[in-house]
Amino acid sequence: METIQTEFLIIGAGYAGIGAATQLQMAGKNFLVVEARDRIGGRVWSKTLPNNTTIDLGAQWIGPDQKLMWEQALKHRVKTFDTYDEGKNILYYNKKMTYYKGTIPKIDPFSLISLGLSLDKINKWCKKIPLDKPWEAPDAKKLDAITVQNWMNQHIRFPKARFLFKVGVETVFACPPSEISMLQALFYAHSGEDFEKLISIQNGAQQTRFEKGSQHLLQCMAQPFQDKILLDNPVNAIEQSEKGVKVYTKKSIITANKVIITVPPALVEKISFLQSLPANRVQLQQRIPMGSAMKSFAVYKKPFWREKGFSGQVVSDLNPVQVTFDCSPADASCGIILSFIEAENERFMITLSEEKRKELVLQRLSQYFGKEALEPDYYLDKSWAEETWSGGCYAGNPTPGTLTSFGEYLRTPCGNIHWAGTETAMKGNGYMEGALESGYRAAKEVLSN
Amino acid sequence: METIQTEFLIIGAGYAGIGAATQLQMAGKNFLVVEARDRIGGRVWSKTLPNNTTIDLGAQWIGPDQKLMWEQALKHRVKTFDTYDEGKNILYYNKKMTYYKGTIPKIDPFSLISLGLSLDKINKWCKKIPLDKPWEAPDAKKLDAITVQNWMNQHIRFPKARFLFKVGVETVFACPPSEISMLQALFYAHSGEDFEKLISIQNGAQQTRFEKGSQHLLQCMAQPFQDKILLDNPVNAIEQSEKGVKVYTKKSIITANKVIITVPPALVEKISFLQSLPANRVQLQQRIPMGSAMKSFAVYKKPFWREKGFSGQVVSDLNPVQVTFDCSPADASCGIILSFIEAENERFMITLSEEKRKELVLQRLSQYFGKEALEPDYYLDKSWAEETWSGGCYAGNPTPGTLTSFGEYLRTPCGNIHWAGTETAMKGNGYMEGALESGYRAAKEVLSN
Repeated sequence: METIQTEFLIIGAGYAGIGAATQLQMAGKNFLVVEARDRIGGRVWSKTLPNNTTIDLGAQWIGPDQKLMWEQALKHRVKTFDTYDEGKNILYYNKKMTYYKGTIPKIDPFSLISLGLSLDKINKWCKKIPLDKPWEAPDAKKLDAITVQNWMNQHIRFPKARFLFKVGVETVFACPPSEISMLQALFYAHSGEDFEKLISIQNGAQQTRFEKGSQHLLQCMAQPFQDKILLDNPVNAIEQSEKGVKVYTKKSIITANKVIITVPPALVEKISFLQSLPANRVQLQQRIPMGSAMKSFAVYKKPFWREKGFSGQVVSDLNPVQVTFDCSPADASCGIILSFIEAENERFMITLSEEKRKELVLQRLSQYFGKEALEPDYYLDKSWAEETWSGGCYAGNPTPGTLTSFGEYLRTPCGNIHWAGTETAMKGNGYMEGALESGYRAAKEVLSN
Repeated sequence: METIQTEFLIIGAGYAGIGAATQLQMAGKNFLVVEARDRIGGRVWSKTLPNNTTIDLGAQWIGPDQKLMWEQALKHRVKTFDTYDEGKNILYYNKKMTYYKGTIPKIDPFSLISLGLSLDKINKWCKKIPLDKPWEAPDAKKLDAITVQNWMNQHIRFPKARFLFKVGVETVFACPPSEISMLQALFYAHSGEDFEKLISIQNGAQQTRFEKGSQHLLQCMAQPFQDKILLDNPVNAIEQSEKGVKVYTKKSIITANKVIITVPPALVEKISFLQSLPANRVQLQQRIPMGSAMKSFAVYKKPFWREKGFSGQVVSDLNPVQVTFDCSPADASCGIILSFIEAENERFMITLSEEKRKELVLQRLSQYFGKEALEPDYYLDKSWAEETWSGGCYAGNPTPGTLTSFGEYLRTPCGNIHWAGTETAMKGNGYMEGALESGYRAAKEVLSN
C-alpha cells in the first residue's frame, strides 16, 4: 500500500475540515484532507432535482449572526436569498387549525404567557453559561442532572405551551427533550445567541438560504486545494509515535506531524487507535449520541399555498409532520414543502418503506394546505441516521452528566491529534457556523506549535 | 488471508460468548468463537499475585439467586466461599467515623427513615418494570425522562440519606446518578431482584466468591472446545448476504450462517458493517455508554483489620475511596482490601500516575483501618475504562430516553446477526449471570431457525 507523507492531515471534508484546510492553505503549509464519502460536505449535501432545482438534504440555512459563514459567502460571492416568510402560518393543535404570523403561534392567553415566560427565562438564563466551559456555569452540576423534558414538566404549566416548547426543542436538537441535559440545552442556545434565534426565521438561524445550496459554497472554498482532498477514503486506524501520526486509510498509509479529526465524537469510535486514546476521551465519545433527523421534500409545479395566503410554515401535533417550511427556490420556479421529521417521528418513519413515508407525509400536507398537496411532481426524503458516516443529525447531543464530567476532553488534543467538528464549537455549535469555527480553531492549534 | 467456514460464529469470549458456545457444543453444532484479546473472559479477568493468591480484576461475586452461574459452578465443582462479613463496618461521614453492622449504616433516625423508605419504595416499584420490555412499564416515558439524581433530589430529603443512596447507586452502576435514567435504574434493580440485593452481601449480589477467581470457572466451561476459540483476533468488518455472514478478522476471513455478537452495544460501533445496521440499532449503540469503574487492591501480609474487629467494609464521603470490601482469599493467607473507585472518582484517578493513585488510596485506608494500611506488600489497580475492548465497566447504562425510544432494538436480530452480552439480559443484567443468560438465549435463537 502506498505511503504518503504530509505535514498536516485533516480527517473529514465537511465545513470543519475544509475550514481548517483553508487556514493551512493560507499559511502555505503542506496538508491533505481524507474523506470517507465520495463527496465533500459531510452533513451538508446538496442535490439537484430533475427540474434543475437544488435542494439541501442536510444543513441549509444561515443566520445573521453567523459571521464566519457570511464572510465565506461574501468572499466567494455566492448568491443568498431570504427564506420565504410571508402569509399565514398554520398551527394545528388538538384537532383545530388556527393561523398566526411570526415565530410564536396565536394561542390562548395563558398558554401564550406561559410559553413567553419560558422563552424569556431560557433566553436570559442561557447567557450565564460560559461558551468555553459550560461545566463551570453556576449550578452546572444541577442543570446537567436534569433533562429538558423534566424542566418543561416542572416549569411550563399549560399543555399547549408545553407542546409548542417541545416542538421547538425537537426542531432544534432533533431528539426528544428527555434525552437532552438542561445544561447542554442552555449552552447550545447561548452558542447560537439564544433559544429564540434558534427557532426563528426573521433575524434567526433560518433567515437566509444559498441559491445553489450550502454544499456549493463549500466547493468554492475547497477549489484552491481540490487535489489535496482524497475522497472515498475512510480511516481505519491511527498510530501515534514521537515522530508523528501514521494514519491507515482504505487507499493508503499517510504519515503526518499532526492530525485534525473533524468527525462527530460518536463517529470517532469507528477509528481504531493503536495507542488507545485517554479513557476519559473514549468515555466522552460514548456519551454524545447523534440526533434523529429526517428532511422530507414534496416538490410541486408551483408554491400553490402562497396563493392561498399561507407561508408554508406549520406547527402541528399530528405525527409524523409537526414542522414544515416553504423550501421553494429563490425564483419560485417550483414549490417545495420541507417537512422536518424529528426525534421519535424519525425513528418510526425509517422503519417504513419510502412509499409509505410519502403517503403519510402527503396526507398531512393535504390536511394543512389542501388537496393539491397530494400530487407532488417528486417526493424524496433523507434520514441522516441512515448515513454510515454521520450516524444521525443535526449534531451530537451530550447526554445528562456528560458536559460536567467529560466536557473538558472535547477539544483537548491527544498527543498530535487535534479535535474539530461542530460539536466542539463555542459559537454556532451544531451549525455550519460552528463547524467552520472549530476548523479555524484546530488549524490555529496545529500551526502554533 | 485464510478463509474459514463454520456454521455459527460467536464474537467475544466472555461469559456471554462462552455461554452461547456451551449450548452450541451440546447441540453438536459446528462453531467458532473469536476474541479480540489474548485471553478469554472479557470483563472477567483473574490474576495470580506473586504470593500465589488469585484476585479478580473484574467481576468477582455471585449472589444466591444467580441460578445459571450456580449451575455452572456446581457442574464444574469449582470451590466457592462466603465474602468475609464479620465485625464492624465503618461509616465515615462529615469528618466523623461511626461503626455499624449489615448493609445500612447506623445513622440518625431521620436519615435512616428517609433512606429506608426510599429503598423500600425502589424495591417495590422496580417489580412493576417488565424485564422483557421495560419500555412498557407504567409511566415508562416519564421515568425515562428523569435521572436518578433528579429523583434523589426530589424524594430523599436528608443529606446523609441522600449521600448513602448516591454511594449505593454509584457502586451498583459505576456512574454518577445524573447519567442514569430512572427507568433504567428500576429495570436494573428488578433484573437483579431488587435494589437491596444489589447492594448486599448477605443474601445479595456480593455474597459468594470463587476460590480460584471467576475466570477459572469460565475456563472450565470453555475446556471442551478450547480449539474453537481464536484469541487475539479482533473483528474488523462484517458483511451480510443471503447466504450468510462473512466476518473479516485480524487473522482470517470467517464465513458463517449466523453470528452472535456478545460485545457491549457501545463497542459494536468499532465493527465496520459493510451493509449498515438498521439506523435505530446504530443510534441505540450510541446511547449505552459504559460505566467508569476502577478496582484497587492493597495486599497485606494478613487481614490486620479483622483483629481490630473490622469487617473491612467502609462507606465514606472521602474521595477517592468511598467503598471498600475485605477481598482476602478464603484461607486468609494474606489480607486484601478492595477499594471500589467509581464514577467521577475513577475519572479523576485515571488522570494520575499509579504511584499517586496508590498514595491517595493508602492514605484513605489508613484513616479507616490504621497506620498498618500504609505498608502493603503489593498495590495494584485496574481501570476498565482503559481497556480498549471494554471501554468501561461494569456495564453499559442506557441514557435517559433510550430504553423507551430504542429498547426494542437491544435483542432484535439484524438479518443473521444475533445479539448477546449482559446488557441484553433480562435477569442479572450487568452481571456475569446476565451474560450467561444472554448467551443461552442467543444460542437458542440461532438454533431455532
